[in-house]
Amino acid sequence: MKATVVTIGDEILIGQIVDTNSSFIAKSLNQIGIEVNEMLSISDDKKHILDTLLQLQNKVNLVIITGGLGPTKDDITKKTLTEYFEDTLVVNEDVLNHVTQLIEQYFKRPITQLNKDQALVPSKCEVLFNQVGTAPGMWMEKEGTVFVSLPGVPFEMKHLIENEVIPRLIKKYDRPFIIHKTLLTYGVGESLLAERIEEWEDALPDFIKLAYLPSPGSVRLRMTARGKDEDMLEKVLAEKIALLEPQIQDCLVGLEEDDTLQVVLGKLLVKENLTIATAESCTGGKIASVLTSVSGASAYFRGSVVSYATVAKEDVLGISNQLIQEYSVVSTQIAEAMALSVQKLFKTDFAIAVTGNAGPLKGDSNAEVGTVFISIATPKEVFTEEFNFGQPREKVIDRAVNKGLELVYKEILKNYKK
Amino acid sequence: MKATVVTIGDEILIGQIVDTNSSFIAKSLNQIGIEVNEMLSISDDKKHILDTLLQLQNKVNLVIITGGLGPTKDDITKKTLTEYFEDTLVVNEDVLNHVTQLIEQYFKRPITQLNKDQALVPSKCEVLFNQVGTAPGMWMEKEGTVFVSLPGVPFEMKHLIENEVIPRLIKKYDRPFIIHKTLLTYGVGESLLAERIEEWEDALPDFIKLAYLPSPGSVRLRMTARGKDEDMLEKVLAEKIALLEPQIQDCLVGLEEDDTLQVVLGKLLVKENLTIATAESCTGGKIASVLTSVSGASAYFRGSVVSYATVAKEDVLGISNQLIQEYSVVSTQIAEAMALSVQKLFKTDFAIAVTGNAGPLKGDSNAEVGTVFISIATPKEVFTEEFNFGQPREKVIDRAVNKGLELVYKEILKNYKK
Repeated sequence: MKATVVTIGDEILIGQIVDTNSSFIAKSLNQIGIEVNEMLSISDDKKHILDTLLQLQNKVNLVIITGGLGPTKDDITKKTLTEYFEDTLVVNEDVLNHVTQLIEQYFKRPITQLNKDQALVPSKCEVLFNQVGTAPGMWMEKEGTVFVSLPGVPFEMKHLIENEVIPRLIKKYDRPFIIHKTLLTYGVGESLLAERIEEWEDALPDFIKLAYLPSPGSVRLRMTARGKDEDMLEKVLAEKIALLEPQIQDCLVGLEEDDTLQVVLGKLLVKENLTIATAESCTGGKIASVLTSVSGASAYFRGSVVSYATVAKEDVLGISNQLIQEYSVVSTQIAEAMALSVQKLFKTDFAIAVTGNAGPLKGDSNAEVGTVFISIATPKEVFTEEFNFGQPREKVIDRAVNKGLELVYKEILKNYKK
Repeated sequence: MKATVVTIGDEILIGQIVDTNSSFIAKSLNQIGIEVNEMLSISDDKKHILDTLLQLQNKVNLVIITGGLGPTKDDITKKTLTEYFEDTLVVNEDVLNHVTQLIEQYFKRPITQLNKDQALVPSKCEVLFNQVGTAPGMWMEKEGTVFVSLPGVPFEMKHLIENEVIPRLIKKYDRPFIIHKTLLTYGVGESLLAERIEEWEDALPDFIKLAYLPSPGSVRLRMTARGKDEDMLEKVLAEKIALLEPQIQDCLVGLEEDDTLQVVLGKLLVKENLTIATAESCTGGKIASVLTSVSGASAYFRGSVVSYATVAKEDVLGISNQLIQEYSVVSTQIAEAMALSVQKLFKTDFAIAVTGNAGPLKGDSNAEVGTVFISIATPKEVFTEEFNFGQPREKVIDRAVNKGLELVYKEILKNYKK
């Protein structure tokens, strides 16, 4: 059972937008044991689309296409699909009613001809009704290959995958089991980690594959097991993880598939009944934003002061001008004063404070570009670490965000776990 | 002159990470007039890699491959490329010295065997020296097709594209001109915009293609002109834009290729010498984070208070408990109190305040999930708009961020532009 994901759109091929749809689709298919063997991004061009469909026909069982179903003239996917299936476009009354209602409700105007055209579908297709948008999805079959076409707007595509496509696939196909287990590690580099667990890795059976997925400050270890016997796969994976855990205990932070540091930290804060706040300068609110991207964050996150301007450090956080003059805004002393100030202001157990220079130019201090001080205020003390995260700007910000979360996470584990 | 971008890695095919490399490479190639006809993501599998290389050979002029050059065992790209080119791996002394030095400098330890293996390259390849990482890039040619292999770590890949690959391509190929012009619009839906500019669109010459790129709250119009005569292309594009501008004046916010609302707003604030702060509840600091993602934001952004917990609205922003009790935390009154409070606290000309319920569960108020109040404090007044951004949580947050920036941008344009 193999699937290919095809994204249509010149905006992807010229690099104007990043394709996030393929990743979502692949993840959803994997969860029900359907393997994606390839992803393709092709142009809004009739010949290119036809060639691709022809090439995939009989080669894979399932082709999921996104993009090119919007109301405007640059969208030619629907017409091309109709041609490929030697079909004609007909009005689907349910879709037409739905589009009319949506436009009237949200835009308070009658529908235009372009909106009406969205209700046209190939006569032989099965319509995948789009509750959250105007472009319907389509399900078509040809010589044993299923072709599914979905709109490119991410939340419409997601809605259709979850509510229309996955249920049909589960019903239609007998699927093998694919199980992924991911271990999130922090603070140890990829090659050192690999050498440390070499013996364990060499002993993995053939049906388990291991991958190293490095990102700033962390490495994910992903094991993938494939087979017919789900219980056996789960059992062997559990045994292998039990053997691995003690070897990476010092850097292991998460064992769930979707674990991120903010999710793992959030769970720990809830479990230990602890609260947190942040004081941010060069990270500009991103630590707060990352913490609150987790649903339920209000249980432990109280708030943040983004003291971007130097004067805000004085006025809002009450840090003395004399201290700033003496040590400069990018210093251990100011980071610690920031942490203690927000900890008091928001009445929290912990606080993360960051001050630094993300670059590309030097700011209100003489600190080298990339320099970042991170302070953690705990119920008992405050401590600081200094880093240089280099350049570019986004990397400095992202590494500071991750390092701040990592420092407070490790501190709680070490000293505040009941 | 056609190019294909190939990404190797199972982590992409199972949807664990989103491929951002292909987008960056496509953008870089487009800027020097090389068209990307297709992007492929394939698995870390020897046969799959070999089949793909063979299929692209002679079909395109350039293949850029990323991924699978890390130090660990799951990376088989280099071995497979060596086999495809019927070559052998040899140690490159320059790379070996560089890797040794990097590891000693950053990790304070001698190099491991896995690190040493990174200095192995096919004997016939041209090494693309990687100043910022341990895996070298490789440039190989076979029967008129150039194959470039780069590490998958984004900043290493970017460094090599910018400093090694692009200069070589400029030298090697005679390229046609491809010019993109993008107009960023806010607040008018895709189909309505399309109907409004239909006549203008129909009159575009064949060598100019128009695409509509919708995202939450905004639509980008992208024109792409292709041809040999750069001056003519620029001239016609300028004429067409001059004709279009008056038709979309009410919703046009940017004319630069990389314009985003935060960049356009930042430029306007600098030009008018104005400052801004934010008070954020359900957006959790993301407006501040988006504003400060722009280099130079310290010229106009003073800071933010993320008052996530209700108690923080009282303690940090000084909003009376009585007002909160009377109207609930998700209300016009609280949004306006938040805006006025941070405007005063940070001594700014403008403030954006957001309070709402991003969901999925109801929080400290009875407001329906998706409800958001956005207030803008100006030098003269404060005003508020109420929205329901539906679900899911990320969409509510992103739409609130964009809408907040849009409201303040339009207010400044209308009433505070000198």
